[in-house]
Amino acid sequence: MKKVFFFAAALLFGVIASAQFAGMQRGQQVEPPPEGYKPSSCNTFLSQYPAVNAQTRQAMFRVVAPTARKVQVDLAGKRYDMTKNDKGIWTCISDPQVVGFHYYSIWIDSVAVMDRNTEAYFGSNWESSGIEIPEGQEGDYYRFNKNIPHGQIRSIQYWSEINGMERHCNVYVPAEYEQNPAMKYPVLYLLHGWGEDENGWSNQGHTANIMDGLIASGKAVPMIIVMDCGDIKTNPDVRTASGTLTDIFIKDLIPFIDKNFRTKTDRQNRAMAGLSRGGMQTTTTVFNNMDKFAWMGTFSGFFMGGMGARPAAGAAQAPSISQQIETAFNGVFKDAAAFDKQINLLFISTGTEERNPKETVEALKAHGIKHIVFHESQGTAHEWLTWRRALNDFAPRIFK
Amino acid sequence: MKKVFFFAAALLFGVIASAQFAGMQRGQQVEPPPEGYKPSSCNTFLSQYPAVNAQTRQAMFRVVAPTARKVQVDLAGKRYDMTKNDKGIWTCISDPQVVGFHYYSIWIDSVAVMDRNTEAYFGSNWESSGIEIPEGQEGDYYRFNKNIPHGQIRSIQYWSEINGMERHCNVYVPAEYEQNPAMKYPVLYLLHGWGEDENGWSNQGHTANIMDGLIASGKAVPMIIVMDCGDIKTNPDVRTASGTLTDIFIKDLIPFIDKNFRTKTDRQNRAMAGLSRGGMQTTTTVFNNMDKFAWMGTFSGFFMGGMGARPAAGAAQAPSISQQIETAFNGVFKDAAAFDKQINLLFISTGTEERNPKETVEALKAHGIKHIVFHESQGTAHEWLTWRRALNDFAPRIFK
Repeated sequence: MKKVFFFAAALLFGVIASAQFAGMQRGQQVEPPPEGYKPSSCNTFLSQYPAVNAQTRQAMFRVVAPTARKVQVDLAGKRYDMTKNDKGIWTCISDPQVVGFHYYSIWIDSVAVMDRNTEAYFGSNWESSGIEIPEGQEGDYYRFNKNIPHGQIRSIQYWSEINGMERHCNVYVPAEYEQNPAMKYPVLYLLHGWGEDENGWSNQGHTANIMDGLIASGKAVPMIIVMDCGDIKTNPDVRTASGTLTDIFIKDLIPFIDKNFRTKTDRQNRAMAGLSRGGMQTTTTVFNNMDKFAWMGTFSGFFMGGMGARPAAGAAQAPSISQQIETAFNGVFKDAAAFDKQINLLFISTGTEERNPKETVEALKAHGIKHIVFHESQGTAHEWLTWRRALNDFAPRIFK
Repeated sequence: MKKVFFFAAALLFGVIASAQFAGMQRGQQVEPPPEGYKPSSCNTFLSQYPAVNAQTRQAMFRVVAPTARKVQVDLAGKRYDMTKNDKGIWTCISDPQVVGFHYYSIWIDSVAVMDRNTEAYFGSNWESSGIEIPEGQEGDYYRFNKNIPHGQIRSIQYWSEINGMERHCNVYVPAEYEQNPAMKYPVLYLLHGWGEDENGWSNQGHTANIMDGLIASGKAVPMIIVMDCGDIKTNPDVRTASGTLTDIFIKDLIPFIDKNFRTKTDRQNRAMAGLSRGGMQTTTTVFNNMDKFAWMGTFSGFFMGGMGARPAAGAAQAPSISQQIETAFNGVFKDAAAFDKQINLLFISTGTEERNPKETVEALKAHGIKHIVFHESQGTAHEWLTWRRALNDFAPRIFK
């Protein structure tokens, strides 16, 4: 009967038709990018744009906006004016970029929007577009390697009493976790930066690929990595309360993880690290809970004394580094030998193209602290390649 | 030293400053929505809009676009014109909506963009905004319940020989999976619809909440659910090849899952279901591999004979239902007793507000097929509440 056909056809083609105009705007099934350019690996499938040139490290963008008056791409701190052709399609090509991941926005007249042809990456507190500038061999460590065993990223919901609601975190377990049902593992708690969320390390950071490689090659010991959200997703009352993140970690998250995963629960088998503001949260949490952590890392986010280095009211300037070493974090650095006895590793990293804490690190070393490692990512700024490299350098150093 | 302070301050405030203008556009830290309206549960944290009214089931939207000439919201097939105030903020309130999840877009002049204040949901082949109209008690089954044990959604990358690249799928394991390291479980393969991806069932569908509830209450047996992508994320050559999805499932995915999860591997312990086009893919896959599946579900997507119900070239009309029963899917329905011997359950569901396959279901029953269950979702169309209800009704019927 015709009805059956119409039913099937209406369902299938009705859905497609309603999306037809929108479909014209997608970078799919359109003319392929010019020679030398390939779709970025961040693109959703079928999307030809943005396209990246591995040789020149430039990116080409495309937006369909027939009646817009001004369309721009906002990438790595620069706005590029796009040029419209007679079909209402705007394009532009960027300057050469640092390899790795970058957020970007499209400005349609007065509005910063997401380019819907890439996967969504949470950054600056909202959903953003992303682009990946391809790297040569160096990038191998953060790409999927089909020839080694793979761990899993587990999406976990848990109840937080402090938050008064469920929370979401991602937990990486190493490939062997499933094969060794009696084995217990050390745990690294790993935080993203300001405006990002618990998916940052999995999506932007490629944590699973990095760790799979480090563990398969024997460089890192098999470990569990817990990636929670540093911005507390709850009502503002709780969120703005001081020390809330540390409280949630200590009272809700760590007990939950230790109950639901096969973890080693002593401090020698628990580490914490974070990037940018996650580095501040790491120092706050670890230095206030020295009985619970023995390893720590701050990637592009080591702040002496948190924000305590601000000039005191009425003071002419901030305290000197040596003053800070005496007082920061309630004097945790004051007795260098005592610090080294507690903390097996304080890993401090940065990119060479961002503000550099080298002077502070040198002062801490001169003060007698031995368990410091300082890592610089050459040629990178406050961006994800800096942090992929930091994790790749940090993870082999812990739990052994 | 000042440098340390400046370093910390520049890092923290620099990041914030560069996002400041964009920040003004976010629906965060702005005036709260009017009385009766609350932020939608799909919003990213801090975002006040869109806001939903549980009583009237209306949604209020907000966009900051000072120089745009026309701003609209596209929701459930209707475009709403937004009104601008003297600050360049556009708002509108929708008609009453069906409860549950809806995709929507914002039109800025000629461009359909995503509202970046909601989580990103992949639909219509690109990243979309979503809104959740709250439900009363009925919605309990798809909300997080802190009083029961929770399964995990595992994010899995695996190598596909057919695809020639890595693929990503999500795997739900029941809460008890970790506690019973020797236990094996049946597996449901569950597909999304056209233009969506492997995250649809987790994000839009709340599969974990639904299954946690069904299993905790004893209504469904503990099972593994594998959610892969029905749109094949690879180069167009492979993607357009006929039967590729079935091939990937049979040759790559199922062997991978059976190797890496504790599965029962006989056909009595393997089911497949899908929504909309995923229903078509389910019939194609199951009916061509009857040695591998014994249970199946098609949610809003039962197509007799696939698209084979099209009139033959030169024929006046499509074949009648009884003709189709003889020939569809190489005659799988022809011998009703043989069908029932192979298939324990053919679950066919639909919403009452979309095209209804009731006539076909009745004909199949009249033909003698007994293992059919027909489920109607009252008052819903081709949308996620229909499919949450379908899963909630389907899952308790399989593997027992």
